[in-house]
Amino acid sequence: MIGFDNNAKQQLKSLVDKIDRLLEEKSHVEEALRETYAEAKAHGFDVKILKQVLKLRSVDPKELEEQDALIDLYRDILEV
Amino acid sequence: MIGFDNNAKQQLKSLVDKIDRLLEEKSHVEEALRETYAEAKAHGFDVKILKQVLKLRSVDPKELEEQDALIDLYRDILEV
Amino acid sequence: MIGFDNNAKQQLKSLVDKIDRLLEEKSHVEEALRETYAEAKAHGFDVKILKQVLKLRSVDPKELEEQDALIDLYRDILEV
Amino acid sequence: MIGFDNNAKQQLKSLVDKIDRLLEEKSHVEEALRETYAEAKAHGFDVKILKQVLKLRSVDPKELEEQDALIDLYRDILEV
Repeated sequence: MIGFDNNAKQQLKSLVDKIDRLLEEKSHVEEALRETYAEAKAHGFDVKILKQVLKLRSVDPKELEEQDALIDLYRDILEV
Repeated sequence: MIGFDNNAKQQLKSLVDKIDRLLEEKSHVEEALRETYAEAKAHGFDVKILKQVLKLRSVDPKELEEQDALIDLYRDILEV
Repeated sequence: MIGFDNNAKQQLKSLVDKIDRLLEEKSHVEEALRETYAEAKAHGFDVKILKQVLKLRSVDPKELEEQDALIDLYRDILEV
Repeated sequence: MIGFDNNAKQQLKSLVDKIDRLLEEKSHVEEALRETYAEAKAHGFDVKILKQVLKLRSVDPKELEEQDALIDLYRDILEV
């Protein structure tokens, strides 16, 4: 039967405390993000579109240009 | 202690058989989809862009037009 | 400006037809799965637990035994 | 053609700045979480099992007891 000595138990508990603090911090940041998106919505901005556009910023401009051209081409062929 | 009579056990097993058959059928269809996307890639098509465009077909054309305009507007303002 | 000749356009359209047929087949199977889980629920089975247990079948029995022992050990130490 | 006046443009940009700061903060916290899980792994703990057990803490103890009993029952019937 596997088991842990007291030292290992203490170590696991302190790691879990650290994880809990970080999970709590993360949920606060996520809450603040939700509030900011709600604020954007309240000001009339389309949050779904905004998130979509914000993601595009991580794409290399040259590559984004090619993507845009391909999307237009496929939409044209498939009549979308 | 909760438990099941034989009838319930039989019922659970037959439901699981049915679920397994459907899960297997689903994985065959998913395999065939992967093969078709691989075929598209082999023919030089960009699968990521293709999937993105195929999703747009489920959006009402009028709404899609508005989305396109908003995306262009936000990209312009945020220089994306 | 990138573009496709008619042959490539035809090829893309036929691939999309094939993808559409497979996506439709997949949604039928998923619909049948939902109905079967609803049937299980109607018979008093807990669908969430059932799905969880069905997943365990793909784990090697020896490994599953070790996982079970570790889960019990961690739950004991963390009083869960 | 839809458009925004300067005020709306400014508002969108300041919301995006705020979103960016929060997204950055979130990625720092996620990085710290990854490091802590890596630390747990380095100490010989099973991170997948640890995450699984940590999730169980949000389940009401009474409910968790019933879940455990159901899982055992289904595993017994389905020989898992």
